[in-house]
Formats: sequence, C-alpha cells, structure tokens
Amino acid sequence: MTQPGEGMVDVSGKEVTRRVAVAEAVLVADAETLAALRENRLPKADPIPTARAAALLAVKATPAMIPHCHPIPVTDVKLEFELTDEAATVRCRVTTVARTGAEMEALCGASTAALTIYDMLKGICRGAEITRVRLLEKSGGKTGDYRAEDTDG
Amino acid sequence: MTQPGEGMVDVSGKEVTRRVAVAEAVLVADAETLAALRENRLPKADPIPTARAAALLAVKATPAMIPHCHPIPVTDVKLEFELTDEAATVRCRVTTVARTGAEMEALCGASTAALTIYDMLKGICRGAEITRVRLLEKSGGKTGDYRAEDTDG
Amino acid sequence: MTQPGEGMVDVSGKEVTRRVAVAEAVLVADAETLAALRENRLPKADPIPTARAAALLAVKATPAMIPHCHPIPVTDVKLEFELTDEAATVRCRVTTVARTGAEMEALCGASTAALTIYDMLKGICRGAEITRVRLLEKSGGKTGDYRAEDTDG
Amino acid sequence: MTQPGEGMVDVSGKEVTRRVAVAEAVLVADAETLAALRENRLPKADPIPTARAAALLAVKATPAMIPHCHPIPVTDVKLEFELTDEAATVRCRVTTVARTGAEMEALCGASTAALTIYDMLKGICRGAEITRVRLLEKSGGKTGDYRAEDTDG
Amino acid sequence: MTQPGEGMVDVSGKEVTRRVAVAEAVLVADAETLAALRENRLPKADPIPTARAAALLAVKATPAMIPHCHPIPVTDVKLEFELTDEAATVRCRVTTVARTGAEMEALCGASTAALTIYDMLKGICRGAEITRVRLLEKSGGKTGDYRAEDTDG
Amino acid sequence: MTQPGEGMVDVSGKEVTRRVAVAEAVLVADAETLAALRENRLPKADPIPTARAAALLAVKATPAMIPHCHPIPVTDVKLEFELTDEAATVRCRVTTVARTGAEMEALCGASTAALTIYDMLKGICRGAEITRVRLLEKSGGKTGDYRAEDTDG
Repeated sequence: MTQPGEGMVDVSGKEVTRRVAVAEAVLVADAETLAALRENRLPKADPIPTARAAALLAVKATPAMIPHCHPIPVTDVKLEFELTDEAATVRCRVTTVARTGAEMEALCGASTAALTIYDMLKGICRGAEITRVRLLEKSGGKTGDYRAEDTDG
Repeated sequence: MTQPGEGMVDVSGKEVTRRVAVAEAVLVADAETLAALRENRLPKADPIPTARAAALLAVKATPAMIPHCHPIPVTDVKLEFELTDEAATVRCRVTTVARTGAEMEALCGASTAALTIYDMLKGICRGAEITRVRLLEKSGGKTGDYRAEDTDG
Repeated sequence: MTQPGEGMVDVSGKEVTRRVAVAEAVLVADAETLAALRENRLPKADPIPTARAAALLAVKATPAMIPHCHPIPVTDVKLEFELTDEAATVRCRVTTVARTGAEMEALCGASTAALTIYDMLKGICRGAEITRVRLLEKSGGKTGDYRAEDTDG
Repeated sequence: MTQPGEGMVDVSGKEVTRRVAVAEAVLVADAETLAALRENRLPKADPIPTARAAALLAVKATPAMIPHCHPIPVTDVKLEFELTDEAATVRCRVTTVARTGAEMEALCGASTAALTIYDMLKGICRGAEITRVRLLEKSGGKTGDYRAEDTDG
Repeated sequence: MTQPGEGMVDVSGKEVTRRVAVAEAVLVADAETLAALRENRLPKADPIPTARAAALLAVKATPAMIPHCHPIPVTDVKLEFELTDEAATVRCRVTTVARTGAEMEALCGASTAALTIYDMLKGICRGAEITRVRLLEKSGGKTGDYRAEDTDG
Repeated sequence: MTQPGEGMVDVSGKEVTRRVAVAEAVLVADAETLAALRENRLPKADPIPTARAAALLAVKATPAMIPHCHPIPVTDVKLEFELTDEAATVRCRVTTVARTGAEMEALCGASTAALTIYDMLKGICRGAEITRVRLLEKSGGKTGDYRAEDTDG
C-alpha cells in the first residue's frame, strides 16, 4: 500500500508580492470585568500590551503551530484593541512580501491576543468566551481581494 | 521610578493535585464545506487527525505562547470532534497532576484544532468563523469545580 | 587565545533558485505490528496522518534543531508512505526557492515521521528500528544534482 | 575512539525543594533616551510591559536555549524595573519547586527583558549597552544560599 | 458524526519513579570522511560537541516534536560517541523522575546527534546514511525492563 | 476606547540588501575559572563549541524571543571567542540578505553564547558577570553604517 504524496500546497511557482491580511477575535465577558480591563485594574498588570506582545510572537510562530502553513517573511504586524462595555475586540493586520498570504498568521495573532487577555481576567471571570475569530480582509494574492460582508474595513 | 514586581501568580505553595479542564471551539462554515470535511474530501487530506496532532502539540506549547501560564506536566490530552451540517465542534480535555490547572492548555488546544481545520478548508470557503471558544468545565483546584451553564458535560 | 570565527557556511552570495531534496527513512517492525499499522488498528489512532503532520512541522523546525542549518522559505513539502509486510517507508520531498538547499529539512521530516510512527506502535512492539535515513535525491544547487545509487526516483 | 558519556549534571537524586533565584541586567543609554523610556515616548509603545512579557516567556524557554539546563516546573516569575537618568535596571525573580535551581532562568529572563528594551529604543539610540548581567541571590539548594557582595536584596 | 476522544495515553494514575532509557543511532559514511570526523578535520569545526549540544536540546524538545509524547522533567542526559573506520555511533542515555518513560527522548536525542554530524560532513560526503536508530534499553517503568537482544549495555 | 494599531516597524517597502551586524558580550570571572575555561578543564566538557552551537540556534530564534523583531533569512553566522586572564569575549557576526538588519540577532547570539559559558562554569564560580553586551558595527541598511567608538573592528 503506497499512499501518494500529501502535504502542503506547492507555492514555489507563485509570484512574490506584497500581501496583507486582517483578522479579528472578540472576547465577551461581563461588564464589570471589561471595565476592569479598560481601566487596567485586572489582577495581572497591563493586559493590552501583554496581549500585543504575545500576538506579535504568535504571528511569527504560526508555521510552527499549523502544519500546512508556509513560513513567510513577515514585514509588518499591527494590533488594534477596541474595548467596550460588551466586548474586547482585537484586530491583527499582517503584511508580508511573499509567495503566499498571511491569513493564518493574522488569525493566530488575533486568537492568541484574545486568549492572553482571557488568561489575565480568568481569575475574576470564568465565563468569558472568544467569538468571531475570522478573516476581515485580505489583499495581494492571485485569488483576488476578499472582504468579510459586514466589515467597514 | 521603580515599578514593583509584576508577573505570574505565585503557585509555589499550592498543592499538587490531579486537575482536569475541558474547553471547546466551534468552527462555522457553509454546509457544502462541512460535508466535504465530514467525508474527507477537502483539498488537503485528513483534516481531523491533522487538527488533533496540531492540538496535542499546542496544548504542550501553551506556556510558550501565553506569557503568564505556568509550565505543567500534562498527563493526558483527548480531542473529540463533532461534525454536523452546521458546524465542526472540537472539545479538548487536558489532565495534569500539578500545582495549577490546565484551562489555558485546553483552550489553546481547542482553538488550534479549529484554526488547523480552518486552514485546511479556507481554499474552498473563505467566510468560515471560529466561535464559542470557552471553558466547558474544570475540576481539581482549590477554587472549586466549574461547569459552563449550558453544558451537559 | 583567540579562536577564529567559526560557524555557518556563508551563503549570502549564492543565487536564489528553486531547490528540491527528497529523503527517506525506513521503519522496520514485526509483521503483525506492520499489519496493525496498515489497517489503522494501533492503540493510537491515525498514525499516518499524525506522522505527516509531525513531519510538516519538523521540516519547518529544522533550523531550530540543527545548529548550522540556514533558515529557508520552504514552499512545498510532500510526504509519501509505503507500507509493506516488512517495513514502513517514509519519503519526504521538500522544495524551496532559496540560496541553499533543503537536504536537512527533508531528512528531519522523514526522520520525524518515522519516530512518530515508532512512538505510536511502541506499546505493542518494542524492537522496532529506524534505518536507511538518507538523501534520495537533490536538485537545483550549484554543486549539481544528486541521486542515490539504488534509487528509481 | 570512544568518548565517554558527557552531558548534563545528573540531578535525579537531588531533593525536590522550593528554590528561588534573582538576577539582574542593566541597560545603559543616554539620558534623553532613558527619559523617553520612562515617559513611554519611545517610537514603539509600552516597552516595560513588552519586556516583561518577553521575559516571562524567556524564563520558560531557558532549557530550550541553554544546552545543559534541566527543564523545571517554574511556579513564579516576577519582574521589577528601575528606571533612572543613567540606566534601566531589570530584576527577575524565579521560583520553582524542583530538583535543581532557577539561576539560568532568572539570568535569561533579565537578559531578554533588557534586550527587548534595547530593541525598542535602538531606533533613537544605537550606543546602548547591557551590563551587569549577574546573579543577585539564590536560595533553596543544597549548595547553600548565595548573595552577590554588593546587594541589599 | 461524533468521533470519540482520541489522543495521548493517560498517565495521570501512574507512579512517579526514576526511569532510564538508552537509544542509539549509527551514521555510516566512507572511511576518509570518518577519519576526518575523528580528527576534527571536517569543513565545520567541532562536530562531536556540536552534535552533543544539539542532542541535549533535542531531548528537551521531544514533546514539541512528537504529538503523543508527554512532557517530563528530564533529570539527566548523557551522550556517548564511538568513532571507528566504519561508522560513528551515538548513544543517548536519558533519565527522568516521572510518570512515564524517556524512550522517545533518548531516540530523538540520538537521532538529532546523528543528523547534526550528517549536516557537518555532507559537504564532503553525500552518501552518508543513518541506520540502527533504536532503543537499547529501558528501566524503571511498570512494563518491566527491556534490553535489545544484541546489546551488552 | 479604541487603541490605534501598534506593533512592528513596517519594513515592507524597504529594499532587500546584504546587511551585516556584529555584537559582543564579555564574561568576567576569576582568573582560575578563566584558566579552566581556556584549558577545557571545566566540570562540563567543551564550553566553547557548546556556546557556539547555542549561539547559532539563538540567532535563528531571535524573532521568537524579541516581540518586535522581523523574521529574516540569515545567510551567515560566525562566532569568535577571545579568552584572556580577565575575561571571555564573544563576538557574533550575522549576515542576512533582507529588508531589515540583523542587530538583534547578533546581540542575542553573543548574549546566549555568554550565558551558555556562564552555565558551564557556574558550578565553580558563582560571581561571574556578563557585561558590555553591545553592537560593535552594522552595515548595509539605509540608516548608514555604524561602528562603536572604541572598536577596531
């Protein structure tokens, strides 16, 4: 029994272009916990910069976590946090100049930022939940640009 | 200006006990894509075992991803996948015999399994979304057992 | 005492070209164990897809394991498994577009796939052995193509 | 030629006790840069929390960086930053309950925090220098407590 | 369709005992290359200490490479190299005080040492081959001691 | 409250050029310990090649340690060790062909080499100290070449 070669998508022949992907993740918790997060009053200090640092590293660790991901030379990562009474929203924008895009990198970055905040508030709120982990937009590849339907950008 | 010592929660004095945590993540996609996933007809082969392998490694990589996580000797990890017309649900159960629990390990495992499946179906479905990343239950620590409200276990 | 600068081979001046390397590793075990492997009846589920996932990650981790390896942008990895009564053979083909080749990546991928299968069958067969870990072929570099003597390709 | 077995120090027979190590690293830069650091006016945001997050992860990565280090279950890490006109001083305190101490973990944590700050201010100050990377104190092992000579603790 | 929980072997209930595993890997190359290795005349300096350092790190990285491996507190690792006209043999002895053994750690250590030497001599010998990667002995677990048949120890 | 996007410096538009950075780290210890280091009489064998191997790996791990670092294709790393009665000096030269420089890689390499030697001599000398971790020179970027004032090169 021989199983034919399975594995990554071959991107050797694709063109090196500038590619951008933006993903988001939304952390829902109770209003009191979210107020403590906004005012930096959680038991653990500085949740937002800590989540940003963790996300920057997670973006770069993506090919080490997701088996089929190609390693790419990430040239920029930006993290944006929006904190309201109802949720903490993370948006992670990843840029690369490569043969393939950075969707998984953006998703892993947003997801890890949300998990890091979860970790820092779980001592006071065990029912928090991460939701809407999704690609908001991508551009630069041959398959054309993409924008999630309800996104302003 | 001296900033007082900030960092991890000190668990040095906590007791070594058997602790279990279960987390889930739900991947929502269109029915056709989910049918292809169930029937192993995605462009990339074997999404479920691949997601399981990635999750097993992600559980162990959790302290390398989440800054405040303590390294713990994980003694068991089980992954369960439930595939319907509407979603792919991952449940990750992590057991440890340690001074602190495995909630973040279970969440990172479930989340990485869902991201791995996302990666394997994104070629045919770009609007997929990961939702309900949350703790289902935990037991074994001093803070008492926990079970999410709508969970049957 | 000053020790002159030692370290990697300098590939800064080499040309960026498409380079391919294929390596294999052969796992020898008793016929009964190999039959259980072929029929997915090992105590641990799905050994082949698990080994493939581990190998994909190992290929990308190669420069983090082998001190003198250069990091390269891997553009493709394929794994092929041949299962007979006498052995399980793994072939790992790695492609890159880079200043240096992917021989070590292919060898680490094949070797890790074989070690992963070993791990999954060691509960029923302790005398298994990994053998013939070697480069089958390489192409694309300045030193010319290479093909192991007894290889059909 | 057979080379006798070389490698780690064998700690299998040592007792599991609570062990603490404190290390420091001092980053020297010009007064203007240090003022920008104190007032969070560097080109990159939040250098102190970013350095703390990087240090927490570096403490846990120590056995993956230093070949002879034993992996230990770190139970606490605290980072303290002292910012003056002349220097930024990092102190990293690591606690473990293990068969061996956490000196290298404390040193890697302090060193990585200082390198992270260096990275965040190098755009405005290229002559910065990290100095006095050293063990301040350790306690809990069989070899007795240690305190650096000029340390108040 | 629900797939039942699959994953690691649960070792939570196993006893913490001292466990030792010894594995070997044999690198076969031509006599001239092996002479250059023995006399430290390879193009890259110090192959044996480099291989030892890589193996020490690989032993500790094993649970990050092999999906089903449990993380264990390694308490000792020793590497032995035997260099003859016909082969370079690596033996890697790993000790732990844990709920499960260190077979995979010993195999990954021996295998990575051999791959590191391969990398350092591949510039002068492309036909080298790694063979006989196997467990020589293990002791300390409930399943009883094991010794490979043709081993003197 | 929305925090604007913070993160890496965007290097997407910078030119791919050959860039070199050289950093050093100086380990100070007592004369007897330094003599043992020079003569390879430390309790742990082969400190210099071990430090070199650790530094080669640390250079490649830099983007995984320092949050804002961009991943770059390192094309050469050389380590130089100067051992006197007063100190062990490490110099790490890193070359890349990339959109950004290798300063942090050179600093992490030199620093990790010094920490590895520290680890290998700490059994006989607890008061060792790492000092003068700094950039010696860099070339190849748009910001112009740099050379530390007291450096001969």
